[in-house]
Amino acid sequence: MDDIEIDEVATPELDDPVLIEGLPGVGHVGKLAAEHLLEEFDGELVRRVYTTEFPPQVSVDGDGVASLTCAEFHAVETDGADLLVLTGDHQAGSNEGHYTLTTTFLDIAEEFGADRAYALGGVPTGELVEEYTVLGAVSDGDLVDGLKDAGVEFRPDEPAGGIVGVSGLVLGLGGRRGVDAACLMGETSGYLVDPKSARAVLEVLEAVLDFEVDYESLEDRAEEMEEVVGKIREMQDGPAVPDDDLRYIG
Amino acid sequence: MDDIEIDEVATPELDDPVLIEGLPGVGHVGKLAAEHLLEEFDGELVRRVYTTEFPPQVSVDGDGVASLTCAEFHAVETDGADLLVLTGDHQAGSNEGHYTLTTTFLDIAEEFGADRAYALGGVPTGELVEEYTVLGAVSDGDLVDGLKDAGVEFRPDEPAGGIVGVSGLVLGLGGRRGVDAACLMGETSGYLVDPKSARAVLEVLEAVLDFEVDYESLEDRAEEMEEVVGKIREMQDGPAVPDDDLRYIG
Amino acid sequence: MDDIEIDEVATPELDDPVLIEGLPGVGHVGKLAAEHLLEEFDGELVRRVYTTEFPPQVSVDGDGVASLTCAEFHAVETDGADLLVLTGDHQAGSNEGHYTLTTTFLDIAEEFGADRAYALGGVPTGELVEEYTVLGAVSDGDLVDGLKDAGVEFRPDEPAGGIVGVSGLVLGLGGRRGVDAACLMGETSGYLVDPKSARAVLEVLEAVLDFEVDYESLEDRAEEMEEVVGKIREMQDGPAVPDDDLRYIG
Amino acid sequence: MDDIEIDEVATPELDDPVLIEGLPGVGHVGKLAAEHLLEEFDGELVRRVYTTEFPPQVSVDGDGVASLTCAEFHAVETDGADLLVLTGDHQAGSNEGHYTLTTTFLDIAEEFGADRAYALGGVPTGELVEEYTVLGAVSDGDLVDGLKDAGVEFRPDEPAGGIVGVSGLVLGLGGRRGVDAACLMGETSGYLVDPKSARAVLEVLEAVLDFEVDYESLEDRAEEMEEVVGKIREMQDGPAVPDDDLRYIG
Repeated sequence: MDDIEIDEVATPELDDPVLIEGLPGVGHVGKLAAEHLLEEFDGELVRRVYTTEFPPQVSVDGDGVASLTCAEFHAVETDGADLLVLTGDHQAGSNEGHYTLTTTFLDIAEEFGADRAYALGGVPTGELVEEYTVLGAVSDGDLVDGLKDAGVEFRPDEPAGGIVGVSGLVLGLGGRRGVDAACLMGETSGYLVDPKSARAVLEVLEAVLDFEVDYESLEDRAEEMEEVVGKIREMQDGPAVPDDDLRYIG
Repeated sequence: MDDIEIDEVATPELDDPVLIEGLPGVGHVGKLAAEHLLEEFDGELVRRVYTTEFPPQVSVDGDGVASLTCAEFHAVETDGADLLVLTGDHQAGSNEGHYTLTTTFLDIAEEFGADRAYALGGVPTGELVEEYTVLGAVSDGDLVDGLKDAGVEFRPDEPAGGIVGVSGLVLGLGGRRGVDAACLMGETSGYLVDPKSARAVLEVLEAVLDFEVDYESLEDRAEEMEEVVGKIREMQDGPAVPDDDLRYIG
Repeated sequence: MDDIEIDEVATPELDDPVLIEGLPGVGHVGKLAAEHLLEEFDGELVRRVYTTEFPPQVSVDGDGVASLTCAEFHAVETDGADLLVLTGDHQAGSNEGHYTLTTTFLDIAEEFGADRAYALGGVPTGELVEEYTVLGAVSDGDLVDGLKDAGVEFRPDEPAGGIVGVSGLVLGLGGRRGVDAACLMGETSGYLVDPKSARAVLEVLEAVLDFEVDYESLEDRAEEMEEVVGKIREMQDGPAVPDDDLRYIG
Repeated sequence: MDDIEIDEVATPELDDPVLIEGLPGVGHVGKLAAEHLLEEFDGELVRRVYTTEFPPQVSVDGDGVASLTCAEFHAVETDGADLLVLTGDHQAGSNEGHYTLTTTFLDIAEEFGADRAYALGGVPTGELVEEYTVLGAVSDGDLVDGLKDAGVEFRPDEPAGGIVGVSGLVLGLGGRRGVDAACLMGETSGYLVDPKSARAVLEVLEAVLDFEVDYESLEDRAEEMEEVVGKIREMQDGPAVPDDDLRYIG
């Protein structure tokens, strides 16, 4: 297998699409928001990205069929903008891998004609959140006012530790190649899958990209995700394995 | 040394052989099952696979002779199907290495004409197991019914954390290149080398591949393996070493 | 993105410039000292160095604009020597990366004609420091006397653990290519950003390179830096994240 | 810098030399033994091996002069065999690096005509050792009897965890290229630099290679080494550093 392999599943014509990145992160905010968009708008799978940077892992579906872990791009048509939604179960496994993988993601977005990007995520507060503020960061200062109008808050030099992972690089590498990129970070305690924070982030997107989405099923989706996350955590904290080499189910 | 070096020890003609993977994992279930097959059927060593992905390590035999750690393929003839049994002491040391190494394993299996594969392993329950269920996952939905008939249980979306390591990739990468692959995971507490779980997995194989194997020596084999595992653990948890560089016997 | 990318921002003529390295390290001594020079002398940004060895990270400025993490070279003119000051937020992420990155740094310094280098840093004492000694190490024994005259102390075989990171390699790799390199290590407790230690190091530089710098703002600068470091620490020690993959704000 | 750089310091004619490897390991047994040989026989430095696999580090000598960490080969003439003694402060930093580096070491030994190798080390017992047994392992069964005659003990399948690091690969990779290699492992508690264990190992070498060495200074040498190791440990366990990036003196 090559370091990165891309399955070209479909290549629909999209009208000035906007890249929406929602990979796993704090409070699963970005992932939950992105998957909610896919479900509500019935997204069409267009690309699968496999990489040796992901864990050597398959997931098992409801029928017992395993599929190799990958990141996926779905095309989504809304009343407003067309979206190219990037989701998956993993970030890269190394510094270098993050750079390589984000470069690939930006290449694919470019191939579909996307020159705007929103990286969705959470920012941990460490305490219960009562008002769900969305914190913003941008690749270009011209993007600030539009986002402020949509309710995004900009706090000087925050988040203090910067933004890491694919979301950070969508801004950093995206900005360097001329993509107008913004990171929308919903405040969240950081302890649980947080549907309220995901909704706050999606409401910003609605305002900015001029579409409307229903939130009825969002709580249920969050509960399901929390359940899976809980099971995984349980398995990982589970029985001690006798040896470093024995941590694999295999 | 190249990243991967393959010693071609023998190349017997095999009749539509089936790859059986039994590398180390939870409860040593897969490894124990695979080694039991080798012993009972008097397997013939056909390939050794050395790789810089394995620890820089030699093992020492009963005469004090050291050999470089490797994975081995043995050809095994049974009353039913011919088997190509993959065993070894290690999984790969990195994400990328797992992909590269499993690709090599699948190449070797293909070279011998195998287009079916069973990855053997354990799935940890964290508690004492009373009834030894074998959980299944497959690369292709058509394989489910045959395995169910052989007593394999399929639980939607389980194992929740997916299947990791070489076993996972035998399904994931195997499936992508058209191999009919299944993972057979014996339930096991996860704390000890588990011969009952290995037997449950082997009984599935017997049914599916139409051979019969004797289990008399399996308990003894498990005890020996447990003893070695125990000694290794003892050595590893042994005396504190004064410095990071001193962890080597060297 | 390539492993290393260099933005050539400006290429002023410098008169026999001296490389001053101040990347993060114990007590932030080197970084604080180098940034103080940049501020006091109004340095001109000449090079940005991006690398996949740095964390996949952007920092966010006072306006909410993100920029990809990098190391920077500034040209600084003083009454005495011209300086080429290297600062940044990170060291490399791997052994090999340290070698590659330091080689790049030395190449850039050479391109500007620098054949002398001072690596600034701290050496931890583990207790409160009352007298701020500066410990020295050099690439060539001929450099010792000049530094002793400037108040630098040389203690046989110290620091006992050697000098690691970019500072160590500025000596080690610099020395191998004929650069006259010295490491100036201010004693510091190791617990806080230490402006007194940074001042001690800068006073040595003043003596050796024959310039004068004002220290009035150094305490304030240290406090700001400590505040940022504190916030980052807080965020990192913050809420537990549910899964290894969730540690990213993304 | 290349991944591996070799300085050819001298290339004396050696008479059928024997490679003696003494890199850091349990109880510093191998390193102490090898350095004792160098001192007692006044070894001549013949090769320095630099590699990006070693930590990015310089050590500082008695005059404050830093040198880049490396492994060194010294030629040593004894009354019996000529020796090519390999010492250094580090093992490789990764699995792959161990393989690459040991291959380089074996290449250099071959260049000098060595076709025999002794890897010296310690094997931890976890308790005080009263009788200093030397455990052996070999690349070829023909070597066992000669070593038994010299007092080496062979215990079936021990050490149970195999032999790891450069010593392991001198056997494993050396054996694969036809070098007659043995590992001599002195029993040691594992807690301290152990001169008695080093002496036991050296006495085996004396018998096998037919030379005599004086042990008067060995205890002092061990004490000095223990002191340095202690200081390094102290520094490493020293003051907490505020941030992952701050662990460098730099």
